[in-house]
Amino acid sequence: MDYRARQKRLWQLLEEKRLDSLLVTHLPNVRYLCGFSGSAGVLLASPSGSTLFTDGRYTQQARAEVERARVVITRKAALAAVGERLRRDSSRASVRVGIETEHLTVGARALLGAAARGRTRFLAASGMVEQLRRTKDSEELKLMRAAARLGSQIFERVIRKVRPGIREVEIAAELEFAARRAGAEGMSFATIVAAGPRSALPHARASVQRVPRRGFMVFDFGVILDGYCSDMTRTVHVGRPDPRSRALYAAVLEAQEAGVQAVRPQAAAGDVDRAAREVLERHKLARYFTHSTGHGVGLEIHEGPRLAKGQSEKLRDGMVVTVEPGVYVSGRGGVRIEDMVLVTAGGPQILTTASKELLTL
Amino acid sequence: MDYRARQKRLWQLLEEKRLDSLLVTHLPNVRYLCGFSGSAGVLLASPSGSTLFTDGRYTQQARAEVERARVVITRKAALAAVGERLRRDSSRASVRVGIETEHLTVGARALLGAAARGRTRFLAASGMVEQLRRTKDSEELKLMRAAARLGSQIFERVIRKVRPGIREVEIAAELEFAARRAGAEGMSFATIVAAGPRSALPHARASVQRVPRRGFMVFDFGVILDGYCSDMTRTVHVGRPDPRSRALYAAVLEAQEAGVQAVRPQAAAGDVDRAAREVLERHKLARYFTHSTGHGVGLEIHEGPRLAKGQSEKLRDGMVVTVEPGVYVSGRGGVRIEDMVLVTAGGPQILTTASKELLTL
Repeated sequence: MDYRARQKRLWQLLEEKRLDSLLVTHLPNVRYLCGFSGSAGVLLASPSGSTLFTDGRYTQQARAEVERARVVITRKAALAAVGERLRRDSSRASVRVGIETEHLTVGARALLGAAARGRTRFLAASGMVEQLRRTKDSEELKLMRAAARLGSQIFERVIRKVRPGIREVEIAAELEFAARRAGAEGMSFATIVAAGPRSALPHARASVQRVPRRGFMVFDFGVILDGYCSDMTRTVHVGRPDPRSRALYAAVLEAQEAGVQAVRPQAAAGDVDRAAREVLERHKLARYFTHSTGHGVGLEIHEGPRLAKGQSEKLRDGMVVTVEPGVYVSGRGGVRIEDMVLVTAGGPQILTTASKELLTL
Repeated sequence: MDYRARQKRLWQLLEEKRLDSLLVTHLPNVRYLCGFSGSAGVLLASPSGSTLFTDGRYTQQARAEVERARVVITRKAALAAVGERLRRDSSRASVRVGIETEHLTVGARALLGAAARGRTRFLAASGMVEQLRRTKDSEELKLMRAAARLGSQIFERVIRKVRPGIREVEIAAELEFAARRAGAEGMSFATIVAAGPRSALPHARASVQRVPRRGFMVFDFGVILDGYCSDMTRTVHVGRPDPRSRALYAAVLEAQEAGVQAVRPQAAAGDVDRAAREVLERHKLARYFTHSTGHGVGLEIHEGPRLAKGQSEKLRDGMVVTVEPGVYVSGRGGVRIEDMVLVTAGGPQILTTASKELLTL
């Protein structure tokens, strides 16, 4: 990974805010900037040299993973060690340090302040690294394509096991088992498998309910591969769908494809949402589309931008976003279709390769 | 669950600190006090009536799960809604609200303060609900016994699949699959399967490495069942162990059993650590025991108390702690043995039922 280029982009942002360094406490941000994937550590990122502070459990791992940062193994809390370091640094001149206010607790902030004392000034600097992470570099895209492909492959394999009477959790277990065997570190989020009436619940985690003889069945899941999350949703139909269910599916697919087509550099994030929503309005289904259209994805399952009504943020080359409209009709069931889409000047690229034809099982 | 009794215990703590209410932002604490298991929501807990604030995604779930609290579905950020509510409450008299400083970000604290204004005073109140959660009530113990039993059962089933040449991740996948099929919501933490030389790494997540023909193999994993975590470690030996490996195993088992025997009400947490460590000292292995002896477990995988050197906190009836000494000899391999142990006046009760005899595969 080109940690050097990533840190260089950060130095520009620091300069704009007149910050000497950024205290990176959000672990995905730490990983993004220096490669450390342990579960405890903070990075003091600075153009004059970055330092990762972690504890003895991670000595070997930090040595193996970290690039473009010194590693300090500390016996005390990492933030206390950072504070003392800042205290020394600020002994001659005042130092302006950005803190990730969305990822630093009130308690940790107090500890840090007590250890630093002196002339360190802590300034709110929210979302800086997240800003960089919005557009993926070529190494990231390689990993994200692989994660999306893996998700698609295991889906196509596992749906063969669906039949009336099987429990939702059994199908979820099969998906997770296939992912793990293929090398995934885990799932991006709690797997959603929702059959029959439960398909009308947008966030239904797989339950012990058995798949009924007839009805929609929604699969929404992702794998984590080399740190990167995939995210996809497919809806199939168990038993023969009646004409109204077919029409419902066709409308959501049309909306989803319209959303995908709206994904291009310089489009506002809200335009993608509108493109999908307008199709559902035309089919008089918009009132059943109760969530927003999508979100960025990468080292975390939910990243910027938000593809929601009124969002004016411009899409940029290299962003990877989900496009996932859905309709949820209480009693009848629900349909959601979701792809991961890469923004490119040449047009939207769908990373999740599984078919979107209505599959009848 | 007896949410009423739990909240009543909290009111006593609030009274001691002269707090009118506690703003509960840590989700396991929210769940403990009112049953809500969604992934976004805050509980304003107060003797004059508790209120859960969450958003539209959780309307149905909150209605189904929450007891002993009003549910408010909010369109804005939950903390902004809490702030406005506090602003009204404090219009006539000042209100003292405890905040969970270890679980509230600097950004959220600022949002809350801006919305509340007026005469609300926010006071640091760290670890209050965690304090209550240390001792488990009878309903919790039922769930924890079931989780521990499930962990033991799947371990005994899955080790039959171990053979030289199989990858660690495949065994981890089998464990996770078995857990899921048996109804677990997921794993308590990233499954550790470490064979051969990797068994000498205390925190080795299952890797793509193949199990060698001969050597120790450590399994450290847990399941989440109905919200409660299990945690157990067993070490087996692939191929015939030589006398030194046998002796190593016997020493760790002796240390583990000494630790378990030290688990009783009024013992200091550090006494359990010392009991285990002294055995290893006698065997001249203490320098290879590089971590602490255990921790509380429950809704979270790591809870209080910490069973570590010098910890003076007294064990109490109803606590569930792990006892997990280990030795890690670079080159030779490592051994760790871990049980979940319930503290009772009648003596320690081991919840993880799997055999601790040295198993040769």
